[in-house]
Amino acid sequence: MSLTTVIEGTRQALDADPRNGAVQFSVTHELVAGSNTTVDVRVREHAFTVDEPPTLGGTDTAANPVEYALASLGSCQVVTYQFWAAKLGLPLESIRVTVEGDLDLHGFFGFSETTRAGFSGVRVHVDLTGPADPARYEELKRQVDEHCPVLDLFRNPTPVTTNLAP
Amino acid sequence: MSLTTVIEGTRQALDADPRNGAVQFSVTHELVAGSNTTVDVRVREHAFTVDEPPTLGGTDTAANPVEYALASLGSCQVVTYQFWAAKLGLPLESIRVTVEGDLDLHGFFGFSETTRAGFSGVRVHVDLTGPADPARYEELKRQVDEHCPVLDLFRNPTPVTTNLAP
Repeated sequence: MSLTTVIEGTRQALDADPRNGAVQFSVTHELVAGSNTTVDVRVREHAFTVDEPPTLGGTDTAANPVEYALASLGSCQVVTYQFWAAKLGLPLESIRVTVEGDLDLHGFFGFSETTRAGFSGVRVHVDLTGPADPARYEELKRQVDEHCPVLDLFRNPTPVTTNLAP
Repeated sequence: MSLTTVIEGTRQALDADPRNGAVQFSVTHELVAGSNTTVDVRVREHAFTVDEPPTLGGTDTAANPVEYALASLGSCQVVTYQFWAAKLGLPLESIRVTVEGDLDLHGFFGFSETTRAGFSGVRVHVDLTGPADPARYEELKRQVDEHCPVLDLFRNPTPVTTNLAP
């Protein structure tokens, strides 16, 4: 199905009932028995692994949690470019995104209470090709950066509750 | 290597030179040619796929970007529980984390400019087992929630620059 068809179908469904826009996602994570840092992840019918490199106590069987966070941003940028190019009627021939993040381990380890645990800064580099006027791709970028769900997650606070089962 | 050994080794390295705490992560993402939403992700020597379900124009070969964002949070919680249990000398026999996120598609599609593109709310449920006093696991939870890098990313704004190659 073309993305234009998906966009129009979604618009009709949400016009019919705005509550159709509310979606919920759920993911489960379990430490592999006997491991320090290897995590089995399940999302619907999909499964993958998260681990840490040896310098962080792991066996490096997969990328680590903060790398997955950057990957969620980079892949969300790719998909949002695709949808918004379709919405703007702008041809996009290829797209490649690199995401870099800086983090200071003093935070995670609690060696400094003034260093945040998360990224201090993140850089997104987008390389795309297409035949239209470069100014139109700049307009595309503005729309993408306003509507990319994971960029919103990175840039703005999200309410999170944490609960420990008794 | 035990996590206690990793923590002590890291402490010594960071005491020797605080700049040793500064780490950088980098991830690349490329749209699979001919696909609408399938993204090849590369992280160091690791590779995985991100896709969308058919309702969002994809072929559902993998979890989608916002599900990976939740997975980065859930797996980071698991790893942070492991490290801080080691740091506090608290035995942890098993841990399982479920993360749920609510999102309204009006934001991503630009059908409403007052709806944020990202999650409106996220819930983390932690189930763990261990022989110590429950109050000690509540103290562990407090430390984890202060030091988990991806929880910090979700709860607080992170500076992100985006750049479109000319």
